[in-house]
Amino acid sequence: MGQQPDNQAATITGSGYDAWLSYPKLPQGNLYKQYVKWCRAAVSVTEEQDTVQAALREWQRGITSMLDIESESGAEPAADGFTVAFGTFHGGNPLIEAIFDEAAIQAVGPEGFAVRTSLTHKCIAVGASSPAGVLYGVFHLLRLIGSQKEIERLDETVNPVNALRMINHWDNFDGSVERGYSGRSFLYENNRFTDDLDRITDYARLMSTAGINAIAINNVNVHALETLFISTYLPDVARIADVFRIYGIRLFLSVNFAGPMHEGEVGTADPLDAGVREWWKKKAAEIYAVVPDFGGFVVKADSENRPGPFTYGRDHADGANMLAEALEPFGGIVIWRCFVYNCKQDWRDRKTDRARAAYDHFKPLDGKFHDNVILQIKNGPMDFQVREPVSPLFGALEQTNQVIEFQIAQEYTGQQRHVCYLVPQWKEIMEFDTLAKGGAAPVKHIVDGSLWGNRFSGVAAVSNVGNDLNWTGHLLAQANLYGFGRLAWNPELSAEEIAAEWISLTFGTDAAVAGVISRILLDSWEIYESYTAPLGVGWMINPEHHYGPNVDGYEYSQWGTYHYADHQGIGVDRTVATGTGYSAQYMGSNAQRYDSLEECPDELLLFFHHVPYTHVLNSGKTVIQHIYDTHFAGAERADGLLAAWSGLKGSIAEGLYAQVEERLRGQAAHSKEWRDQINTYFYRKSGIEDSGARKIY
Amino acid sequence: MGQQPDNQAATITGSGYDAWLSYPKLPQGNLYKQYVKWCRAAVSVTEEQDTVQAALREWQRGITSMLDIESESGAEPAADGFTVAFGTFHGGNPLIEAIFDEAAIQAVGPEGFAVRTSLTHKCIAVGASSPAGVLYGVFHLLRLIGSQKEIERLDETVNPVNALRMINHWDNFDGSVERGYSGRSFLYENNRFTDDLDRITDYARLMSTAGINAIAINNVNVHALETLFISTYLPDVARIADVFRIYGIRLFLSVNFAGPMHEGEVGTADPLDAGVREWWKKKAAEIYAVVPDFGGFVVKADSENRPGPFTYGRDHADGANMLAEALEPFGGIVIWRCFVYNCKQDWRDRKTDRARAAYDHFKPLDGKFHDNVILQIKNGPMDFQVREPVSPLFGALEQTNQVIEFQIAQEYTGQQRHVCYLVPQWKEIMEFDTLAKGGAAPVKHIVDGSLWGNRFSGVAAVSNVGNDLNWTGHLLAQANLYGFGRLAWNPELSAEEIAAEWISLTFGTDAAVAGVISRILLDSWEIYESYTAPLGVGWMINPEHHYGPNVDGYEYSQWGTYHYADHQGIGVDRTVATGTGYSAQYMGSNAQRYDSLEECPDELLLFFHHVPYTHVLNSGKTVIQHIYDTHFAGAERADGLLAAWSGLKGSIAEGLYAQVEERLRGQAAHSKEWRDQINTYFYRKSGIEDSGARKIY
Repeated sequence: MGQQPDNQAATITGSGYDAWLSYPKLPQGNLYKQYVKWCRAAVSVTEEQDTVQAALREWQRGITSMLDIESESGAEPAADGFTVAFGTFHGGNPLIEAIFDEAAIQAVGPEGFAVRTSLTHKCIAVGASSPAGVLYGVFHLLRLIGSQKEIERLDETVNPVNALRMINHWDNFDGSVERGYSGRSFLYENNRFTDDLDRITDYARLMSTAGINAIAINNVNVHALETLFISTYLPDVARIADVFRIYGIRLFLSVNFAGPMHEGEVGTADPLDAGVREWWKKKAAEIYAVVPDFGGFVVKADSENRPGPFTYGRDHADGANMLAEALEPFGGIVIWRCFVYNCKQDWRDRKTDRARAAYDHFKPLDGKFHDNVILQIKNGPMDFQVREPVSPLFGALEQTNQVIEFQIAQEYTGQQRHVCYLVPQWKEIMEFDTLAKGGAAPVKHIVDGSLWGNRFSGVAAVSNVGNDLNWTGHLLAQANLYGFGRLAWNPELSAEEIAAEWISLTFGTDAAVAGVISRILLDSWEIYESYTAPLGVGWMINPEHHYGPNVDGYEYSQWGTYHYADHQGIGVDRTVATGTGYSAQYMGSNAQRYDSLEECPDELLLFFHHVPYTHVLNSGKTVIQHIYDTHFAGAERADGLLAAWSGLKGSIAEGLYAQVEERLRGQAAHSKEWRDQINTYFYRKSGIEDSGARKIY
Repeated sequence: MGQQPDNQAATITGSGYDAWLSYPKLPQGNLYKQYVKWCRAAVSVTEEQDTVQAALREWQRGITSMLDIESESGAEPAADGFTVAFGTFHGGNPLIEAIFDEAAIQAVGPEGFAVRTSLTHKCIAVGASSPAGVLYGVFHLLRLIGSQKEIERLDETVNPVNALRMINHWDNFDGSVERGYSGRSFLYENNRFTDDLDRITDYARLMSTAGINAIAINNVNVHALETLFISTYLPDVARIADVFRIYGIRLFLSVNFAGPMHEGEVGTADPLDAGVREWWKKKAAEIYAVVPDFGGFVVKADSENRPGPFTYGRDHADGANMLAEALEPFGGIVIWRCFVYNCKQDWRDRKTDRARAAYDHFKPLDGKFHDNVILQIKNGPMDFQVREPVSPLFGALEQTNQVIEFQIAQEYTGQQRHVCYLVPQWKEIMEFDTLAKGGAAPVKHIVDGSLWGNRFSGVAAVSNVGNDLNWTGHLLAQANLYGFGRLAWNPELSAEEIAAEWISLTFGTDAAVAGVISRILLDSWEIYESYTAPLGVGWMINPEHHYGPNVDGYEYSQWGTYHYADHQGIGVDRTVATGTGYSAQYMGSNAQRYDSLEECPDELLLFFHHVPYTHVLNSGKTVIQHIYDTHFAGAERADGLLAAWSGLKGSIAEGLYAQVEERLRGQAAHSKEWRDQINTYFYRKSGIEDSGARKIY
């Protein structure tokens, strides 16, 4: 990328800053010749529109880097007459207008594009309804080239499956990032907005090329100074929105429900108070005056001590609808988070079950929200654990817009010091059949809006980026960032396909290299799970910072996070007959399956059942032997990740090699700490020997 | 006190700011008449010396407040001719010179005093060798009055038993206080020295009247900016020293062993390097130029990641002696801490024993330190736990100056949110017979220098004060601050006597009130121990901040702090035959007693032995039943503390009543958390039922 700070130039090679926009040089050969034939010399772009021009720049950067050729807009086609053309369908580009007929145009949605190789016109054309579609289409073409695909017979129409493809930043105005594992914020420093718009531009390029179209730029935990983002600091917000806009990204803000009180103009935040409603309407007008395409508000209310409508005896619908009313005239939306539970629980109380909370709070409100309100539902009922069941709210809300919330930031999955490629987890969740409407209702069809025909829908995730030069701390964590965007765009892509794309765009097209990295990525979640979170038990981590093993770390806490291990057994009884009844929040056979000790899948057994250590799993092993075996195996496989990566030395840029090697080395060592602490804990507690007589302390 | 900030005036009554200098009004009666007879009208003070004048001011403040009379220096005696006189023996006060003969003068040491009621001269005289002695003597007289003692037949000579009676501040330049539980520092704020010398003056008054004569003003963990206390910030240091000097207190500084490198003048901190030695000599000269009575340096080296001589292949003696050499010409001393251990231990390693560390490090160096070096040895081998054995270093060092280090700050004893009067603990330690020299060698005679005839000796403690209006957060924690000073002055005072003094000076002389508060104080350590730390197990607390229960909090850590609880038993085997051999660091029968499962005292059993939960204690109970019983009883007794205090409502100042009530209420609730977490932990682990069938979760 051209915008990197000059003083870091020496470290750029192999820094990872370019991420999937590295455009590695392609090998010579027939495909190379094909690309050069079509792409050299001339590109036809007739629109001056910012986004289209950004697409052109991306194109030029990409082919120059990959193919070592220049291509000028408006230049004469090469002697053989081959060219490429990009534009909106009605933007006045004669090639676009000639190549795409009305049927083709009709097939392309507001953010989609069509790409076609026209032999007649000796032109590869990318046409779209909107400038953003052009940008997506151009990067699609670059990706095809970067992953060595044929481009002589292109005829594709591509539309994003999900309308909202959103990133949530948990950046604080002081420059810290809540649950950030990649340095500090690149948006704020010391209670000021950054002046480095170059970095934000590069960030927008990364996001748009991954398919993202919405970004909330501040933490959902909105602190005092950050309430001023919608007043004092609006000009700064507008500057960032101006950059995002070029890349087809709408800016959202997290707001504090008590905002009206913070600014001292209104003495209450009661959503039914006329003054409060007026205040928010005025704010909305002020925001849209400077950010005309402002996306809307993200709200964490009545959750983990955040203010909300409960204070005034109102419910979530009252709160969300009040904000929705303010944004409605401008086309804005309210994203209201469902992460609501009792965070002051008494650990002695085994009947209150945090897992039940989101459903219990929001199911009764189904149908009560305005149609520009979207509920944002975490993928699972707890909080982004390594393994959880899917939230039973999916499928339960029939008349409510919803987005699913993932966490790209690896809060509970190794904090970007361990590799944990999360796309397989997200895929599994998206494919989960909620059995709503009697079956064949996978989560992906709920969040894309097709099952219930929602006005708004989509996918959101907590960002994993910071001001580390490589954006994500761990280079391999870039795959999660890229992968989230791609999966949000098209949930039908497989985890393998997404990994392959990311690898070729980042490291080039060497098949051996790709094979190794792909294996590392695809194994990584299972490996991390195996030495940290057996059979659906979560929270065996150090409190607060959430890094590293601590089996009782959350056992005697107020957070509703328990495993109830004693000398005989472990697990949370969430059955109907003897437990918290959580299993009944699922529909049909899902409820029965989870409720049944026999049918419950092994990997979630301890989430739903309290069993003796000697309970025999479907796998044939006892629970305790499973714990020992997976921890020994997982720690050994962590060594394997390092060994596999070591084989890449010399095959990839030294800087990329070295930074991952260092992280994998740390992971291998830390996995032993996990193994030994967990095995020792359960050995000391149960007194049951490992059948393999391996070393437990 | 007159110096309280004006804007807090409204909250002063009952704030606790005056502490043991409250001088409560005394009741009418014969004693009152006696006091008035002697003290009214005139006081004879002829010396202009600052400390003597400070003593005079304290006297006037005291009798005005307690007796409601004025007394002027130089005024004519009242008609009946009674008077009081204060002065040094050779300061020119005719009354002092007339009343004390040479024999009396010889009996008074450099900091001591004599107080005598002379009927001949109709005068109560306080005479001393030094101005500081006058101050101590005057406050002694005030204390006699404040605690309603006869003053008509006084004839006492009082000398402090310990030469060094020292307070260590762990205040940081940024205004934080490491292990501070009473607000922020009143010495520093935001990397500046305070301008509030009034508060420092009041602090010096409190310290001197408690008997303290040395204060180290900065944290032993010396951070970068604090290394500049001996250069850039020397003028600020001198300002504080000027205040302390008036109250007979010498100022010490904690220094960073790598100081020469921080200031960039020398490229090493090697204690045998000539440049380094020269640097420290130059520094010492610079310091003494502005603080002529500077006490010396406190050093934490090669401990918990602090720099030290080990880096250069030198030992502690090399390091300490180098600094001693620099201070020697000026009469300064080096206080070198023995808190040295491996803080990166592998919890899997059961042979490395942190308890052994101080002895193993320092015993071999006995006799190698210069005679202006003092080793500062923590009272126990670990770190200020609720219950530890006495450090075996006491008695083992025959040719080395030493001070014992206590912690007034309640890091592990309730953090000034629970009441825990520590004087009984300190007494027990001081009385412990080390059996050095074949027996009858209690710790108190080692640290007072009498056993080995040391040049320097004494008692030091980590301060518990901060900028809370009442100094110590919990009002009752003032008793620890006062009590430490008194015990350092005279270890023969009982915990009961000290409590009684503090109570009468703080709350007045109501016997019923005193009875209640005394009982609360004297029971408090036992109560706190009973619900937090059974049988010598420590560290069952939350890591880092060290507040609240967490049985495994330090079990899988790097800090050398383990209990090894499993489903069968608990405790650390420190015996010679099968354990770490720590018990052999004690002498004679102490070693045998601790090593023996039968003879080891119950309260230290799990410190020395790993036993089954079913092991029967000397008390006749099993270990597990002891755990259950003490936790149920302790939590109930915490309720009792609150109930007892509640009975004082109306009998003491409302402000004092309310602030303690609030803390005791919190303690009562938090004791249930301790009870339930610890009982539940051991019940879940052992599976053994409570014989009382009480509620365990």
